[in-house]
Amino acid sequence: MYSLPDLEPIRDFDAIAVLTSGGDSPGMNPAVRGVVRAALNSGVQVYGIQKGYSGLVAGDLRVMTSSSVRNIVQRGGTILKSDRCEAFKDPEIRQQAAANLKNAGIGALIVIGGDGSLTGAHLLAEESDIAVIGLPGTIDNDIFGTEDTIGFDTAVNTALDAIDKIRDTASSHERYFLVEVMGRNSGFLATHVGIAAGAEMVIVPEYQVNIEELGRQLCENRRTGKGSSGIIVVAEGREPGLTYRLAQQLQQQGEDPRVCILGHIQRGGHPSGHDRVLASGLGAMAVSYLLAGYNDIMVGVSEGAILDIPLDSVIRYRKGLDPQLFELALLLHK
Amino acid sequence: MYSLPDLEPIRDFDAIAVLTSGGDSPGMNPAVRGVVRAALNSGVQVYGIQKGYSGLVAGDLRVMTSSSVRNIVQRGGTILKSDRCEAFKDPEIRQQAAANLKNAGIGALIVIGGDGSLTGAHLLAEESDIAVIGLPGTIDNDIFGTEDTIGFDTAVNTALDAIDKIRDTASSHERYFLVEVMGRNSGFLATHVGIAAGAEMVIVPEYQVNIEELGRQLCENRRTGKGSSGIIVVAEGREPGLTYRLAQQLQQQGEDPRVCILGHIQRGGHPSGHDRVLASGLGAMAVSYLLAGYNDIMVGVSEGAILDIPLDSVIRYRKGLDPQLFELALLLHK
Amino acid sequence: MYSLPDLEPIRDFDAIAVLTSGGDSPGMNPAVRGVVRAALNSGVQVYGIQKGYSGLVAGDLRVMTSSSVRNIVQRGGTILKSDRCEAFKDPEIRQQAAANLKNAGIGALIVIGGDGSLTGAHLLAEESDIAVIGLPGTIDNDIFGTEDTIGFDTAVNTALDAIDKIRDTASSHERYFLVEVMGRNSGFLATHVGIAAGAEMVIVPEYQVNIEELGRQLCENRRTGKGSSGIIVVAEGREPGLTYRLAQQLQQQGEDPRVCILGHIQRGGHPSGHDRVLASGLGAMAVSYLLAGYNDIMVGVSEGAILDIPLDSVIRYRKGLDPQLFELALLLHK
Amino acid sequence: MYSLPDLEPIRDFDAIAVLTSGGDSPGMNPAVRGVVRAALNSGVQVYGIQKGYSGLVAGDLRVMTSSSVRNIVQRGGTILKSDRCEAFKDPEIRQQAAANLKNAGIGALIVIGGDGSLTGAHLLAEESDIAVIGLPGTIDNDIFGTEDTIGFDTAVNTALDAIDKIRDTASSHERYFLVEVMGRNSGFLATHVGIAAGAEMVIVPEYQVNIEELGRQLCENRRTGKGSSGIIVVAEGREPGLTYRLAQQLQQQGEDPRVCILGHIQRGGHPSGHDRVLASGLGAMAVSYLLAGYNDIMVGVSEGAILDIPLDSVIRYRKGLDPQLFELALLLHK
Repeated sequence: MYSLPDLEPIRDFDAIAVLTSGGDSPGMNPAVRGVVRAALNSGVQVYGIQKGYSGLVAGDLRVMTSSSVRNIVQRGGTILKSDRCEAFKDPEIRQQAAANLKNAGIGALIVIGGDGSLTGAHLLAEESDIAVIGLPGTIDNDIFGTEDTIGFDTAVNTALDAIDKIRDTASSHERYFLVEVMGRNSGFLATHVGIAAGAEMVIVPEYQVNIEELGRQLCENRRTGKGSSGIIVVAEGREPGLTYRLAQQLQQQGEDPRVCILGHIQRGGHPSGHDRVLASGLGAMAVSYLLAGYNDIMVGVSEGAILDIPLDSVIRYRKGLDPQLFELALLLHK
Repeated sequence: MYSLPDLEPIRDFDAIAVLTSGGDSPGMNPAVRGVVRAALNSGVQVYGIQKGYSGLVAGDLRVMTSSSVRNIVQRGGTILKSDRCEAFKDPEIRQQAAANLKNAGIGALIVIGGDGSLTGAHLLAEESDIAVIGLPGTIDNDIFGTEDTIGFDTAVNTALDAIDKIRDTASSHERYFLVEVMGRNSGFLATHVGIAAGAEMVIVPEYQVNIEELGRQLCENRRTGKGSSGIIVVAEGREPGLTYRLAQQLQQQGEDPRVCILGHIQRGGHPSGHDRVLASGLGAMAVSYLLAGYNDIMVGVSEGAILDIPLDSVIRYRKGLDPQLFELALLLHK
Repeated sequence: MYSLPDLEPIRDFDAIAVLTSGGDSPGMNPAVRGVVRAALNSGVQVYGIQKGYSGLVAGDLRVMTSSSVRNIVQRGGTILKSDRCEAFKDPEIRQQAAANLKNAGIGALIVIGGDGSLTGAHLLAEESDIAVIGLPGTIDNDIFGTEDTIGFDTAVNTALDAIDKIRDTASSHERYFLVEVMGRNSGFLATHVGIAAGAEMVIVPEYQVNIEELGRQLCENRRTGKGSSGIIVVAEGREPGLTYRLAQQLQQQGEDPRVCILGHIQRGGHPSGHDRVLASGLGAMAVSYLLAGYNDIMVGVSEGAILDIPLDSVIRYRKGLDPQLFELALLLHK
Repeated sequence: MYSLPDLEPIRDFDAIAVLTSGGDSPGMNPAVRGVVRAALNSGVQVYGIQKGYSGLVAGDLRVMTSSSVRNIVQRGGTILKSDRCEAFKDPEIRQQAAANLKNAGIGALIVIGGDGSLTGAHLLAEESDIAVIGLPGTIDNDIFGTEDTIGFDTAVNTALDAIDKIRDTASSHERYFLVEVMGRNSGFLATHVGIAAGAEMVIVPEYQVNIEELGRQLCENRRTGKGSSGIIVVAEGREPGLTYRLAQQLQQQGEDPRVCILGHIQRGGHPSGHDRVLASGLGAMAVSYLLAGYNDIMVGVSEGAILDIPLDSVIRYRKGLDPQLFELALLLHK
């Protein structure tokens, strides 16, 4: 677990609110629990907002007690429900959201979600006097300023469980499988899964792969007896249908690979131990940062420590894939 | 576990062979183990044939010892590898296969696979003096004459694990998911999965479903607060792309469902306890049936007992989906 | 799945009640769901009783709707909670329980539990004019008159998951492990787990095992290179501490085995697909039996079919372990 | 994943060796694979030593190829087998071990294990001219100088899976469970598991717990309706039987808790994604450190980076439990 910052409380809140937004990720529940328990423990009331920004705009605020978050630490999804809210891109709508909070006596908001959600959080912080803190909740681990996100570790494990099953069939039929994992525009999830799955190859948006060369190598492996089955992990990337096109290319070179699109199972499931501890810690720390007077930041992870990053930077920069990690993936499969 | 028949040994074999054929299914390994251990225990030598009928035609026969099947009971796939062998449809090729067995002093063959594989087994039995016994190995449970097949129970559990994860996301986003499971032309797998998943609806090739009516009901559920998320299980059926078309139809009625195609993960994974016990029993019993003088039969399950069915019937008839079971699925989700 | 009986409704109930009793078992929730959904579908009101017979005696009856059982099919334990109620052995207490039901206009009771719970059910049926139907809910599968019980299949799978992990360590350290599974006085669970785990030996209350002989064989295996690690499955049986004593005996013969007591993890966890379908079917059928005029019976499984057995027989006889099954366990590990 | 150091190769080895030692931990296999693949990739031959230091003393060295480590990344335990070797405490025996390596032309050794094993590694480095590098392989995460160890993350997840099952029963019976996890003298595993399990209390060797106070609180929770079931995580600690004694103490205060000792299942199982990536990275980096001229160090993790720590320090100091982490565990359960 990451080390926790030491923060001095200097500010008071009667009440704060918490919401989950965007694609759900496993660990959002322990994060909400961390927020609620830490706030109550500091004498601050907590409201849960249903369905992300949509619920905030609609004023759907519900008081949460210690029991509201009982027995949820192990549950996937989010008890607060989530939504992608187009309307929140409209500044007037955001003004209404801020007004809803103020009218209910709520001085601060904690937003758990991906970069779209954190953009909304930053704008709300800038445009209102609500203190806003974001937590990185996404399986894609594609958020600038943090090395880890809530749900990433679970998604890696879910993809590996699936691949461990696919490997049985691959090996029984001496066949290659192209397995597409999530990750939006980033190859972070694919690279981790690829290393951990012992994949023959990892195909990510950040690096060019010579498919003809790959096809030649697979045929060569088969011919020399070096191997006749295996897994190729493909990041979904920007072009839908990429994985099927890769399969066709390999087919033209004499292989007969099969395609598996892992899809939405990667978003669900009991959060892993790592994600439960991370989410609990981030949730509790978000409250500490609020009480220490912080605003317009994300609480994330860097160099083994939980720390704050301005939301402004979070949404302005794009996180790059560590080239060393990608090289490790290639090295190990030779 | 099913009750075992009492069989009198009346026939001797110096050696028998075993192969796995067609799509692999979890439990093939404990079935092979059952064959090998039971045969050795009766003083009969066992050969394992690599890659199904392809290996038989190529004469790829390997002596198996008790240790060959050590530590495989829990492993998915098949250590003998599997294949779909088009060439075996040619009678001359089958003659060569029979000759390969005779030349190696092998008097009997046990074939573990689905109905294509059992068709080959029946033809070999008819056209040669090799004694042939089939075991039903398929996740689809679509083989006439047996109520259970090796791998079906594991596939149900694998599909349920995936759906339990998808349900987290479905419920967090108040959305319906169409989940496509395997099953070839049969709705057996889909119906079991649907009952066990608590699905809103099960769509199978055997029964017509009024999609418009379903769409209306889902919208009605959402409107009345009865429910706003859930799982609809779809059997892959005969028409590729069916599930995506259903999603489009529901979209036209105002729902925004997501599609998950579970795909090959359903064939892999550690076999379940049920499949390991079933496969072990069928494997051991296949040897007993051979020693009791049986030929050209499948060893399957009916009315709670392991028994024999002529291969002739197995391949001639099509197994129907129990209407009571389908009605149960509908009843429980009202 | 087992075939379902065809039953003619001949009797009317305004309301029925359902409770879970004794040790919980995975699948109790889908069974309750089956009862509730089938009853509502037939126009019968359903009450859920909290904490088994204790709640019945206390009159803790709560109306259940279709939504009460929404999203529980996959959950372990029992939403109705369970209890062992000593007081229910007193006939006067049972009279009060019957009066509580009558006063609420409830004409029938469905009891889900093990043989202690079914004994209570039988006495209530005999001594009152409440119609009572029992369902076998126990991981031990030790109930006379039924080949299967709700929770057994899940418990087998849970034990196997644990043993698959233990096997890693056993094999890395070339050591034997004695793994104790539940099962009360019966070796049913142990024998199934033993076959499915590929155990070296299964030790059950029903059959004598020569431990010295076993020790000699393990040493012999080690000496001849046949094997130096493995799993010995032990049924908890009647004598607490048996497994530790066996370990000591083997130690005296030069082995250094380790002991694992699987304990309560065997009662929990998501019910398996098999248990969910079984429990759903038994729950729905219990209602059909009530409407068809049955009373004082258990609905169970025999020869591949769901059927009724008089509760009188269920509690009078002891179910024996199938000797063929035990022999299969021994045969496969040679 | 942790960032990787940039190392300049300055030294040549014809051959190196690798062994796993002490209690096995999940991830030892991907670590061995990382060593083998990275070494071969740098043109260095690799020998695998069977059964830890015992095999080294006996001279049981086997050449490993890229295929030797094929398809092991997902397997628990260690393909090299492991052992606790008392004889290696004898300096003469260590001289013989070094001689065995030199005679085979092996200039360096990589040792994967816990602190006992790393002590042996340090002594061998000091007393011979074999270059020795240690990797932290233990589920206990109790090794000084590194924040993470191979197997820890998997053990946390395994314990959580078990506790998620136990919680079903705890909640159905309104009972508390004392769950004992491994961790030797350290509460690291227990604290992580406790946070992630949402435990009522965590009992570790590093901090005193007032059991009477705990009992009072549990009774109070039950009385006020705040909660009547839950999990108390206990580190095995130094005193065997501690968990049973705690149960007795709580019993004297009116609770009726149950005890579960998770035991050896915590050492086994497929390594988690995190452990596979960590182990792969550490394995590959151990080779890089050797080629960069390092000796007598452990490669571990600190502040989010993979780095080297002198073995001397590793074995001299005791790693403390982070008080912030323990406080977080307490905070979240209020």
